[in-house]
Amino acid sequence: MTAPLKSIEGTGDISSVMREIGLRAHAASRVLALAPAEQKNRALAGMAAAVREQASAILSANAEDVAEAKAAGVVAGAFLDRLSLDPTRVEAIAAGIKAVGALKDPVGVVTESWTRPNGMRIERVRVPLGVIGIIYESRPNVTADAAVLCLKAGNAAILRGGSDSMRSSRAILAALASGLEAAGLPQPAVQLVPTRDRAAVGLMLQGLDGNIDVIVPRGGKSLVARVQAEARVPVFAHLEGVCHVFVHRTASLDMAKKIVLNAKMRRTGVCGAAETLLVDRGCATINLKPLVEMLIAAGCEVRGDAATQAIDKRVKAATEEDWGTEYLDAIIAVKVVDDIAAAIAHIERYGSHHTDAIVADDGVAAARFLSEVDSAIVLHNASTQFADGGEFGFGAEIGIATGRLHARGPVGVDQLTTFKYRILGNGQTRP
Amino acid sequence: MTAPLKSIEGTGDISSVMREIGLRAHAASRVLALAPAEQKNRALAGMAAAVREQASAILSANAEDVAEAKAAGVVAGAFLDRLSLDPTRVEAIAAGIKAVGALKDPVGVVTESWTRPNGMRIERVRVPLGVIGIIYESRPNVTADAAVLCLKAGNAAILRGGSDSMRSSRAILAALASGLEAAGLPQPAVQLVPTRDRAAVGLMLQGLDGNIDVIVPRGGKSLVARVQAEARVPVFAHLEGVCHVFVHRTASLDMAKKIVLNAKMRRTGVCGAAETLLVDRGCATINLKPLVEMLIAAGCEVRGDAATQAIDKRVKAATEEDWGTEYLDAIIAVKVVDDIAAAIAHIERYGSHHTDAIVADDGVAAARFLSEVDSAIVLHNASTQFADGGEFGFGAEIGIATGRLHARGPVGVDQLTTFKYRILGNGQTRP
Repeated sequence: MTAPLKSIEGTGDISSVMREIGLRAHAASRVLALAPAEQKNRALAGMAAAVREQASAILSANAEDVAEAKAAGVVAGAFLDRLSLDPTRVEAIAAGIKAVGALKDPVGVVTESWTRPNGMRIERVRVPLGVIGIIYESRPNVTADAAVLCLKAGNAAILRGGSDSMRSSRAILAALASGLEAAGLPQPAVQLVPTRDRAAVGLMLQGLDGNIDVIVPRGGKSLVARVQAEARVPVFAHLEGVCHVFVHRTASLDMAKKIVLNAKMRRTGVCGAAETLLVDRGCATINLKPLVEMLIAAGCEVRGDAATQAIDKRVKAATEEDWGTEYLDAIIAVKVVDDIAAAIAHIERYGSHHTDAIVADDGVAAARFLSEVDSAIVLHNASTQFADGGEFGFGAEIGIATGRLHARGPVGVDQLTTFKYRILGNGQTRP
Repeated sequence: MTAPLKSIEGTGDISSVMREIGLRAHAASRVLALAPAEQKNRALAGMAAAVREQASAILSANAEDVAEAKAAGVVAGAFLDRLSLDPTRVEAIAAGIKAVGALKDPVGVVTESWTRPNGMRIERVRVPLGVIGIIYESRPNVTADAAVLCLKAGNAAILRGGSDSMRSSRAILAALASGLEAAGLPQPAVQLVPTRDRAAVGLMLQGLDGNIDVIVPRGGKSLVARVQAEARVPVFAHLEGVCHVFVHRTASLDMAKKIVLNAKMRRTGVCGAAETLLVDRGCATINLKPLVEMLIAAGCEVRGDAATQAIDKRVKAATEEDWGTEYLDAIIAVKVVDDIAAAIAHIERYGSHHTDAIVADDGVAAARFLSEVDSAIVLHNASTQFADGGEFGFGAEIGIATGRLHARGPVGVDQLTTFKYRILGNGQTRP
């Protein structure tokens, strides 16, 4: 058993500690890559049990984090809510681990296979990515959520949580470590960076001498922007979700109302929440007013173009900035567009290639929208709030990616793997 | 029709020209992404015809390049061979374009689809990557080979060829441009960087303001190393192919001889050529001597460990450096290893995660090797020289990748695409 790294706060020797973490993670990743599903699931079951058993230790560590934040002047609000655990949230962590255990193991699955004319059989088989670096903020539950998804897909995880939640993360890590130990898996399969020094993040973004294969940032826009700007290794992330609903002239008003309301207001703080409503001029006379009135009645602030302002005097004027803004709040920008081409052009110009929906009865228009809108997820007659790994049936997700390569859209356990080619011959040589 | 960019050599205004190239490529990529297969194939057919029609112009441009290289003191050899075209090679370029036209169009193919309990249908559909930057050296044929693979997969290409072959590349580009024009596709679908200034490469590696999605380097190790070290966008490449053949104790000697000879000597200059032979101690007494004698008889220099040197006095001593060397020549390093575990450990330590093979009768040993060796391509009882897109049945390849993400192994037209999720609903909202 590898001894856990001690906290090195104040020693200043971050480079060598981080290098060592990278080497340990790489070595552990080779063990995990070959671990059978049963062994990984045993570790996950042990982790879930340990989180439950150690709930009081986790809660008291968290209470210290919360007390420190309050002492530092943080008052009640979103930050404190994200940082705080209670027995229900700890139980949710344990239940989440158990749910990941129940997912299908992606490793070893043959996704394609074919036989060549010379008799060679070629198989494309899923293998783990290797080592995944997770950089997150104050939510201590990410420590468990991210680590267990990585483990399920056979990857080692290097976790760098927020300074504010370090005690909570350490307490959760201790529970994860018990699960690894019980299953005979190496402790460095899940490591927590043992320092609050922000230089550790910079070192992770450089890839720890090639020992980090992918970075996943989990947090606000400034964190993601820094990671995307500085990372020298691939990043699975989205900077923002400026998601659109386009109501086509053939849309049924009832369906449009239902979808727009859900896309905007079900939860306003998720990345799949709609931020802009585009209404086809061909149906604006009939549909615009009821849609705007519905949104205002639901408590949503509406910022519109001239045509929308003319409908209802409660509509504020949208500025150029509004079209590209991810409000993550009960605010929506509304614009009347000339036709489907104008809607697609607007989305290309202002969108973030995350998730965009069309409401239309006309299948030809819908097909055009789905084809021409260059986003990770495009929907016809369904809410943008389905942009979620759970809703896709992936069981769980580590996030949503808007990059073009490898993982796009929800990143679940399958997306945390890569592949290799396995060739089975009986003596073939190349002419 | 967009006017072609003039050569800007000596103007020093590289940044703005490259920015413009990036913007044009991005705009063209959106057109290509939606172009039907028939239109792309019409362009390819036009390109092949134009290469044939313009063969004499291409050959005389090439003659100027060759004359300049000779005037600069280049003597006959590999460099001049790579640079030189003749009627046979020009015909091969045209035939290659035609062959790409015959490949199946990957764009729009639904690779997975499923229906959710709420009735929503989710489809994972192939879409182009976007804009691909190709950075290559003296071979003028890459201008056509790379551009047409990108085009087939719906991508725009920005080509930055070697300074030595610029006239040849321009002449080939003119033929490609005729094909684009005849099919009504935008000229900036294929652009050639119009300057020999190396700063253009640096700007491409930075991604031209987000307008390059992937970089593919085609050339020697120093080019690939520079691209991998500096690129801020994903790279499909392999630095080197230090490929191994492991002869297991259960291998048939006949098969081992056949595969080793082919893996090493069929062509020594390809990345899938074997560079190291590992022989299981359990069969070394019988197999080592005939394998070594066969290699020497075939004109291969053998550098061995002590056990191999003891077999034949013509075997030179292998140094530590030999185990990690990609000779690309008729030289092989030979080592006797204790068992399959030692073979796998050797490959993990010295290999390049490209292509490695085991020769064995025992299926359990073979399965272990294929599972534990962490390379893009692993083979059982087949030659490492099958590491090639054509041999995989991909029709053509732009190269072989050893990175872990997205494209691994041969990169053909399918690997030059990404995907999006298309969701078909009938009014679903998220609870």
